[in-house]
Amino acid sequence: MLKAMLEPKSIAVIGASRTPGKIGYVVLRNIIGYGYSGRVYPINPHANEILGLKAYPSVLEVPGEVDVAVITIPAQEVPKAIEDCGRKGVKVAVVITSGFSEVGNVELEERIVKIAREYGVRILGPNIFGYAYTPRNINATFGPMEIEKGNIALISQSGALGIALMGWTIMNEIGLSALFSIGNMADIDVAELSELLIEDPHTRVIAIYLEGIKPGRGGEFVEKMSKVTREKPVVAVKAGRTSRGMRAVASHTGSLAGSDQLYEAAFKQAGIIRAYTVEEMFDIARAFAQQPLPRGENTVIITNGGGVGVLATDAAELTGVKLLDPSPQLIEAFKQTMPWFGSPKNPVDLTGQAVVDNYLKALKVAVESPEVDNIVILYCRTAVLDPRDLAKAIVEFYEENKVEKTTVTSFVGGQDAYDAMRYLNRHNIPSYSSPERAINAISKMIWYVKYREAKRKK
Amino acid sequence: MLKAMLEPKSIAVIGASRTPGKIGYVVLRNIIGYGYSGRVYPINPHANEILGLKAYPSVLEVPGEVDVAVITIPAQEVPKAIEDCGRKGVKVAVVITSGFSEVGNVELEERIVKIAREYGVRILGPNIFGYAYTPRNINATFGPMEIEKGNIALISQSGALGIALMGWTIMNEIGLSALFSIGNMADIDVAELSELLIEDPHTRVIAIYLEGIKPGRGGEFVEKMSKVTREKPVVAVKAGRTSRGMRAVASHTGSLAGSDQLYEAAFKQAGIIRAYTVEEMFDIARAFAQQPLPRGENTVIITNGGGVGVLATDAAELTGVKLLDPSPQLIEAFKQTMPWFGSPKNPVDLTGQAVVDNYLKALKVAVESPEVDNIVILYCRTAVLDPRDLAKAIVEFYEENKVEKTTVTSFVGGQDAYDAMRYLNRHNIPSYSSPERAINAISKMIWYVKYREAKRKK
Repeated sequence: MLKAMLEPKSIAVIGASRTPGKIGYVVLRNIIGYGYSGRVYPINPHANEILGLKAYPSVLEVPGEVDVAVITIPAQEVPKAIEDCGRKGVKVAVVITSGFSEVGNVELEERIVKIAREYGVRILGPNIFGYAYTPRNINATFGPMEIEKGNIALISQSGALGIALMGWTIMNEIGLSALFSIGNMADIDVAELSELLIEDPHTRVIAIYLEGIKPGRGGEFVEKMSKVTREKPVVAVKAGRTSRGMRAVASHTGSLAGSDQLYEAAFKQAGIIRAYTVEEMFDIARAFAQQPLPRGENTVIITNGGGVGVLATDAAELTGVKLLDPSPQLIEAFKQTMPWFGSPKNPVDLTGQAVVDNYLKALKVAVESPEVDNIVILYCRTAVLDPRDLAKAIVEFYEENKVEKTTVTSFVGGQDAYDAMRYLNRHNIPSYSSPERAINAISKMIWYVKYREAKRKK
Repeated sequence: MLKAMLEPKSIAVIGASRTPGKIGYVVLRNIIGYGYSGRVYPINPHANEILGLKAYPSVLEVPGEVDVAVITIPAQEVPKAIEDCGRKGVKVAVVITSGFSEVGNVELEERIVKIAREYGVRILGPNIFGYAYTPRNINATFGPMEIEKGNIALISQSGALGIALMGWTIMNEIGLSALFSIGNMADIDVAELSELLIEDPHTRVIAIYLEGIKPGRGGEFVEKMSKVTREKPVVAVKAGRTSRGMRAVASHTGSLAGSDQLYEAAFKQAGIIRAYTVEEMFDIARAFAQQPLPRGENTVIITNGGGVGVLATDAAELTGVKLLDPSPQLIEAFKQTMPWFGSPKNPVDLTGQAVVDNYLKALKVAVESPEVDNIVILYCRTAVLDPRDLAKAIVEFYEENKVEKTTVTSFVGGQDAYDAMRYLNRHNIPSYSSPERAINAISKMIWYVKYREAKRKK
């Protein structure tokens, strides 16, 4: 059933509007503009045509089948629309409309769920900004029309934040496979959506902004999410960690946040990686989306700056990343890649005199050594090495040698270092604005692999 | 004596070079190119003129006085140069040259210090990239020529990181008053430099990247830094927090890092704000540089997105920022600024329908209310409010009303939200990529005010 959202043959927009700026207009424009190739049916009793498409007075009048109906009409009219959807055989109703339990209108929300159940229609929402699935060019949201394509599925319980993140992910070139606004979760919840994504070949990692699950459904949440994390990593921010934050949640989505310790325990049990900020969530998700899973925990840091090497070393120790103690042979091999005053131990410090060649030699040693599982490449802007040259060389090296060792990078410098990091990111080598963020991301990958192995052994 | 670095009437570059790319060339080019208006003397026995300036074979041949000498010649020749400086009456020798204690050459380092002491010359370095003082257009480094001017003094024990941060601060439009590379700290140390900056009217906050102070000088460090923090906030990153990080420090600068608990205690005693990443250090320093100190701890969050409001609330609770419980009157006043379904409590949620006018009204209420000390402005990208319009309106409001309440902001969205944040930052309203970072910055400001008040009462 839910799968219809990912592969709908047709989408109806109930409440499609001819007025630019209106939600019913923006949703329809986004569906068409982002390139969805299935059939699209605007539903509006007062229009014959909207945005070049024939409009229908009711979903019941649509000639063909309707898999997904996006609903943007006023709350009071939603029950009738859901009933129409039921009679039409719509599989999922995406209820964007707000004015339900989040403003105390619990009864109306219960009513639409009841009707939906009668007919076997599933409801996403209400009180959401829509959903998107980029492999099929579906953008059924009232956010920006463009969505960067990629392998991260984002599920957001906050509408405003979710929409804002649509722009944010574009700016940061973070690619999404899917995007779900879940709002009041009257029917479909975060666990069910995550389950749906297990089989999705375009999703490598699931990122969730969560304010709270429904009371009494903790056990089900843990059970379902455990199944998900056996197959795919899940990274989640749980907002409402503090008592005051929980009160803010209550006045925001009306959901009961529940004690943070409970969530902490549930996440741990379910193998969900907990991020503490949205930025951190994407830091981690990017690494999973772009890199192979670590094959082990022995990590090597290669740097041209002692300071960032120290910062990364601290971060590794604090996040449980095991820094390899290289064998004498490996130390000797690293020694050949650097000036005499460099440091061949871990961190491997190529010194500020390092040029592209030093990095490539050290990378070659690291990639070929069976001792090394993961690689952290750091760079500080120097006069002798343009970061863009280094980024290009790294990408070329990784592509030519089909490197399978998990790698993260961090470049510190000005605009050119920033550009170099964008280049790396665009070529699936995750790059971070600080060594600590790079280390944190890889630490979570290593944790996940260990978690999953332990789980699978059971 | 040290003050000569901030107001030198003349600078000599011992080892000035005609060869582009050489350190002795870059330093001279930067001093000239960044616009230093005092006299500049290239010292090079093999040249008559360098970069359009008359060159002298020795600093002793310079006709006028020399306040500061920047030294870039090979290590073995440095003792002689220091002696010349002494005979010439140079006040500070900035020894860029490396090859001293950091590579085990302790004896040579001790020798130059001994000579310097005999003549009363002070030494910055050796093994540094130079120093800068932007109010006088002094850039005596071999980093980039441009330095963004501002009110943060940066002291870096790591050369590579410091240089990389020169580019990074430009890209992020973070303004510096001064920049000191301290390297081996053979003579002038971080505490003395901080003391020097107490009286500097252009420095509002001191940011320090520290790997370790000299053994046995902990007491002196605490004493001097306590004096500094009574007048100006100091934010420091201490690298080498973990045992492995400390080993990395030892192989990097050769300095003994000492146990992290000792530093933790010393920082606390000295009133130094500890940052855990370089990004965090600048987050905090920016707030101090741009905003007035908090007049109290009652903080109000104004937002158009519930989700970011919750994240900020959590962050406030976790960092000890006291969120105001508004009086009934204040709640009523906030109520007038928002749609009926908004939340007038704290966080003040103007809802996703908020436009500029809602924000301005809420800001007016917050600024005029005696209950409110500090303001956190959050924004999530919506279709109804362009973040650039909001940023302009905020800046105008703050400038017109000469708002004296400490304010930080965070906008979540795409390129336009990013541009809006740049605009805010450029107009002294610090803006951060996440609500948590904004809250963290203001939490440290509030902490500092309390610390200082307690200290001054004693």
